[in-house]
Amino acid sequence: MDEILIEEIVKRVKETLANSKETSNIIPIEASGRHIHLSKENVEILFGKGYKLKEKKELSQPGQYQCMERATLIGPKGVIENVAILGPERGKTQVEVSKTDARQLGINPPVRDSGDLKGSETVYIATEKAVVEARESVIVAKRHIHMNNEDAIRFNVKDKDTVNVRVKSDRPVVFEDVVIRVSDKYKLSMHIDFDEANASSFKNGMVAEIIS
Amino acid sequence: MDEILIEEIVKRVKETLANSKETSNIIPIEASGRHIHLSKENVEILFGKGYKLKEKKELSQPGQYQCMERATLIGPKGVIENVAILGPERGKTQVEVSKTDARQLGINPPVRDSGDLKGSETVYIATEKAVVEARESVIVAKRHIHMNNEDAIRFNVKDKDTVNVRVKSDRPVVFEDVVIRVSDKYKLSMHIDFDEANASSFKNGMVAEIIS
Repeated sequence: MDEILIEEIVKRVKETLANSKETSNIIPIEASGRHIHLSKENVEILFGKGYKLKEKKELSQPGQYQCMERATLIGPKGVIENVAILGPERGKTQVEVSKTDARQLGINPPVRDSGDLKGSETVYIATEKAVVEARESVIVAKRHIHMNNEDAIRFNVKDKDTVNVRVKSDRPVVFEDVVIRVSDKYKLSMHIDFDEANASSFKNGMVAEIIS
Repeated sequence: MDEILIEEIVKRVKETLANSKETSNIIPIEASGRHIHLSKENVEILFGKGYKLKEKKELSQPGQYQCMERATLIGPKGVIENVAILGPERGKTQVEVSKTDARQLGINPPVRDSGDLKGSETVYIATEKAVVEARESVIVAKRHIHMNNEDAIRFNVKDKDTVNVRVKSDRPVVFEDVVIRVSDKYKLSMHIDFDEANASSFKNGMVAEIIS
């Protein structure tokens, strides 16, 4: 019995190593457009009492989805219409824009990790029904890599580590200070915004390589 | 006489080395917005026969200036108004936009060195007086470093070399494949576009360091 068990373990370890070798270092990249995460309270102000956001399509991270609903961002210098709302609802409303968007709106949000909103920028969010002031809700998302625990072992990193990542294109770039975010709910993917995508000539299918 | 000459040469070489040590590796960065270089022929179509562009302000590169005049870019999907025209006139009209601008216009220009326009994108340029079709005139400028021959010796590079350059900010980036352009008419400066500026949190005073 023990020998069979050991054989089985050795076989599985070998398989795991073989698999990890095949995919080592290569991380798919996604470019995130501007979007809004709404609190339940803000959903009800913007769409009505008891309103439930409708799922339009699943996103790469399990459980996250783009909604049928859209909203308008209003800043002191400009307006951006037709902005995607992502579900599910969150405890606090969070708006993620690029620096290009921020310039258009006339605000100066900090580059931050998701959820780190203290002292961030303020914007108005509008629908046909209502307008809310979303105080300290706006950030430029800091680029990051989602991965599960198995990936973390393979890449030899842990949650909140930072790494340097090379992207190959006709505008090759090394993104430094890229945050690792580990959870067994996550699927391996590096997220950059549209400014970073344009600066590195992002195309669908582009991959990143951790170099240090 | 000879001894005095040799002494003088040694003194000057020492001074040069001392100076080069002080400023070594540090290169000022400028972010270039979208702009248009016009041919003499296009100036006359857009502004009138015999028209001379008026200088508004000098740019960092000697002899280059921003003009009082502005123009509108028209693409298949959008329009960008109030675009800067740079002088002096060139042999061929050249339009430099960011990938963000290109998306708005609905065109897909290649990332290219200035002057390399074969197979590049087409856009219409309009003033109140006229519209011209600028065929194969639109590029996304490839990031580059202007320097004079003395700088080239100090950095140990030559014209058309490519280098990797680190930028420190809250979005630190290594720009790879940065083209060196050497001329005694040039002043030391790295030029990036607004997408690259946003992706690296550019602020005035930011500098680049050649790392390899």
